[in-house]
Amino acid sequence: MTDTVKDGELILLYQDPRRHWIARAGEGRFHTHRGYLDLKDIIGLTPGTIVKTSLNQSLFVFKPGLSDLVDSFDRPTQILYPKDIGYALYRFGLKNGDTVIEVGTGSGALTASIAQCIAPDGRVYTYENRKEFSRSAQKNLAKTGLSRLVTFRNIDPTESFLERNADAAVIDLGDPWKMVQPAWDALKGGGILAGFTPTVNQLEKLAEALRNNGFLIFEAVELLVRDFKTEAGKVRPESRMIGHTAYVTIARKISRKE
Amino acid sequence: MTDTVKDGELILLYQDPRRHWIARAGEGRFHTHRGYLDLKDIIGLTPGTIVKTSLNQSLFVFKPGLSDLVDSFDRPTQILYPKDIGYALYRFGLKNGDTVIEVGTGSGALTASIAQCIAPDGRVYTYENRKEFSRSAQKNLAKTGLSRLVTFRNIDPTESFLERNADAAVIDLGDPWKMVQPAWDALKGGGILAGFTPTVNQLEKLAEALRNNGFLIFEAVELLVRDFKTEAGKVRPESRMIGHTAYVTIARKISRKE
Amino acid sequence: MTDTVKDGELILLYQDPRRHWIARAGEGRFHTHRGYLDLKDIIGLTPGTIVKTSLNQSLFVFKPGLSDLVDSFDRPTQILYPKDIGYALYRFGLKNGDTVIEVGTGSGALTASIAQCIAPDGRVYTYENRKEFSRSAQKNLAKTGLSRLVTFRNIDPTESFLERNADAAVIDLGDPWKMVQPAWDALKGGGILAGFTPTVNQLEKLAEALRNNGFLIFEAVELLVRDFKTEAGKVRPESRMIGHTAYVTIARKISRKE
Amino acid sequence: MTDTVKDGELILLYQDPRRHWIARAGEGRFHTHRGYLDLKDIIGLTPGTIVKTSLNQSLFVFKPGLSDLVDSFDRPTQILYPKDIGYALYRFGLKNGDTVIEVGTGSGALTASIAQCIAPDGRVYTYENRKEFSRSAQKNLAKTGLSRLVTFRNIDPTESFLERNADAAVIDLGDPWKMVQPAWDALKGGGILAGFTPTVNQLEKLAEALRNNGFLIFEAVELLVRDFKTEAGKVRPESRMIGHTAYVTIARKISRKE
Repeated sequence: MTDTVKDGELILLYQDPRRHWIARAGEGRFHTHRGYLDLKDIIGLTPGTIVKTSLNQSLFVFKPGLSDLVDSFDRPTQILYPKDIGYALYRFGLKNGDTVIEVGTGSGALTASIAQCIAPDGRVYTYENRKEFSRSAQKNLAKTGLSRLVTFRNIDPTESFLERNADAAVIDLGDPWKMVQPAWDALKGGGILAGFTPTVNQLEKLAEALRNNGFLIFEAVELLVRDFKTEAGKVRPESRMIGHTAYVTIARKISRKE
Repeated sequence: MTDTVKDGELILLYQDPRRHWIARAGEGRFHTHRGYLDLKDIIGLTPGTIVKTSLNQSLFVFKPGLSDLVDSFDRPTQILYPKDIGYALYRFGLKNGDTVIEVGTGSGALTASIAQCIAPDGRVYTYENRKEFSRSAQKNLAKTGLSRLVTFRNIDPTESFLERNADAAVIDLGDPWKMVQPAWDALKGGGILAGFTPTVNQLEKLAEALRNNGFLIFEAVELLVRDFKTEAGKVRPESRMIGHTAYVTIARKISRKE
Repeated sequence: MTDTVKDGELILLYQDPRRHWIARAGEGRFHTHRGYLDLKDIIGLTPGTIVKTSLNQSLFVFKPGLSDLVDSFDRPTQILYPKDIGYALYRFGLKNGDTVIEVGTGSGALTASIAQCIAPDGRVYTYENRKEFSRSAQKNLAKTGLSRLVTFRNIDPTESFLERNADAAVIDLGDPWKMVQPAWDALKGGGILAGFTPTVNQLEKLAEALRNNGFLIFEAVELLVRDFKTEAGKVRPESRMIGHTAYVTIARKISRKE
Repeated sequence: MTDTVKDGELILLYQDPRRHWIARAGEGRFHTHRGYLDLKDIIGLTPGTIVKTSLNQSLFVFKPGLSDLVDSFDRPTQILYPKDIGYALYRFGLKNGDTVIEVGTGSGALTASIAQCIAPDGRVYTYENRKEFSRSAQKNLAKTGLSRLVTFRNIDPTESFLERNADAAVIDLGDPWKMVQPAWDALKGGGILAGFTPTVNQLEKLAEALRNNGFLIFEAVELLVRDFKTEAGKVRPESRMIGHTAYVTIARKISRKE
């Protein structure tokens, strides 16, 4: 049976690597810089079909994957990049049924990515003390259909997380070392902690806090991703690339020395 | 309730980043270069605990994550690296319930990783025409508890895959361009194709085949990951790193021009 | 004795890493986006002094190094980057008295850099068949004071260079494989050839031509350079970087098999 | 006139990228793992010629460039890499006649490279307080024919360099921040300082010292170089690469604020 675009469904309109948008099939018009599209006209289409705007600009219609949706999130804060999220999630080994703590929620990019990994039976508890960020993240999550797997906590967990025996804890905020002790308390034995830190100094302080508070550091890495042009006879890396986002630290809870 | 090591369970024995092993709690001894461990003694331990070998070497006991298990797979072929697998899986947006085709199975590293993403309700169909590889991969998968999600096909799909309407197709073999047409037939509209190619020439030929056979290339990238030393006051990248594994190409099925 | 700015001398006016200019001490005014500077006022200053524009913008006055001058060259073509030039020149081992052939001249960036290496007794013969490029390069070279070491040849050397027994040959044009045979004829035994190629396909064809025409490839490399922020407590790589310029191939002339 | 190998001259015997040696034409035998070579037999050969060992191993005979000689230096300390040396030298804009201070001498790799840049009329003053290093470096320099351009100072310049009005100062030791004040005193206005630091923490402390002591930081960079395989149809980066050597900081002396 063919899988077609339904009324009310989110779709990816794709022009080229730099110009693509998320829209909702149904009422209204979608405006591009080269004409508009009646969003009713895409209902019933097979994904991968080309549609034309009023000014004859071609757009591909796709069902968005999670990373397409995350790309479209409102971003009150710096968003993590796919290279960092993908690597960390794989290294976590998250799976259906796991319980994960996250702080801070930020735009919800990582929240959504974790939620998809632990679906359908796991749960993400995500902490964010800035009210407007938490609200924005909840709106973002709603687009992904993963909200039911997420508990939003609009509080500051510096002293303690409410959870215990969690499988993993993800720390993505400016002073991650403050969350190391609360994370130790909230994780089960051998539980995984991941921290994302933009500067080397933050990396150093986080690593120090981990070593001093019952964690074994498995790795601290940076990832670089480079896009390639692939036209026949002209293969080469793109001239510009992202030089830095964040260092990713992965550790596991160990028994404290008494 | 605490989560302890059960009799018969696979565990990760961790000495340092370069020395760690998968063993099974229960009967027998595990030998390291510095003494042995009675595997019965680890039953009932809390993960994260330190055990000592007969020669007093400390080892941490953890429950292995999927990437720990994959690290321990028998590898008849070159294995993909976590940086590549993690990125590709995230870009795929695989989720519970998806149907994925893979060729070739190789050691099953990618097979297992995909299986965990589409659990508990999805399915992976993996093709491998070399009998001994297929058998080795099945043994590897058995360690991960994910075998029930995987159908192994010990045949050559150069002419056609048996599946239709698949969500994604993953191509990891030496002449990926041969699988582009079969993948198009097997994918649903907008379905995702990912190819892993070690050489630039393979990348070029794959890209050409995709453009000529009903696919839109979303990206072709290479990822670099660099480990960091994190000792206080001596933070710096490791002196050596992996310089290259494979290029990752991600494309989506589009309607063919008639 | 202190080294001060002389009338008529080129100087570097430096505001920050992105805003710096070459100007000539003496007559006239230098205009920035924040006020102007009387160029007479900088005569007699010690380099490293701060001057103020009419709108109180601070600018440092320095004597420009060669790479500062090269940065300011008119560039009809893509310019090579310091990372590539510096590496190649060091690998060449060029020294006072050497004879070097270059094709094409382009903006003269590499020409000037080579000339400085072989000063005061060597010579650079640089070929460029596009008249306007050759003229522009000659103007650029005049700024550096190195013109007397350079012979400009506004001809196409595809068939043959005029020189013999050269120490090194540098090829920086779109179809470098065409120059391999002429370079072999022009170099002394063991002489060095360097090629700069933006695409992998050009690299491949150049390498093939070298292997088939009496050269031994010493290395083919790409260089990446990443800038760092160094503010105390916030050390980290810059967010953006140049992802690719060119591959650098270095080979040496060997005796042909007869 | 052809340039042949002279009696007593240093030559490069080249088997492949990993196996190459410096030897002296003349008396004696050179032993490889596959037979020996009578060093008298290479006198009179044209560079680029193949010679055979007693066991028929082919070796190319070349005249060594400076970086070939530097590769062969005895190394009591970590040696800098061509990527770092080449970049720094190019950024310095060193030229014939310049005066350069260096600390510490180490193996003399950088000393030799600087000396070649400032030949025939410049001078390098190089400081090394460890007697055996200074002696080893002098022996290394002797191989390059550049000794007459270098003054070796076997003293600790922490308090002060003996020179004044130098064009450039190069700092390559563990606590470079200690040399910032002495370098300021020794440099002319606008003079260039370069520091090589293996760890981020050293980079941070050096940068801080520069900002506080009359220097303007032009850049702090790291360079990565990646080797490529270039066989036709199999082009790709080598699997392993050097992940890190040192950060290169380049600054210029400015007038101090009073």
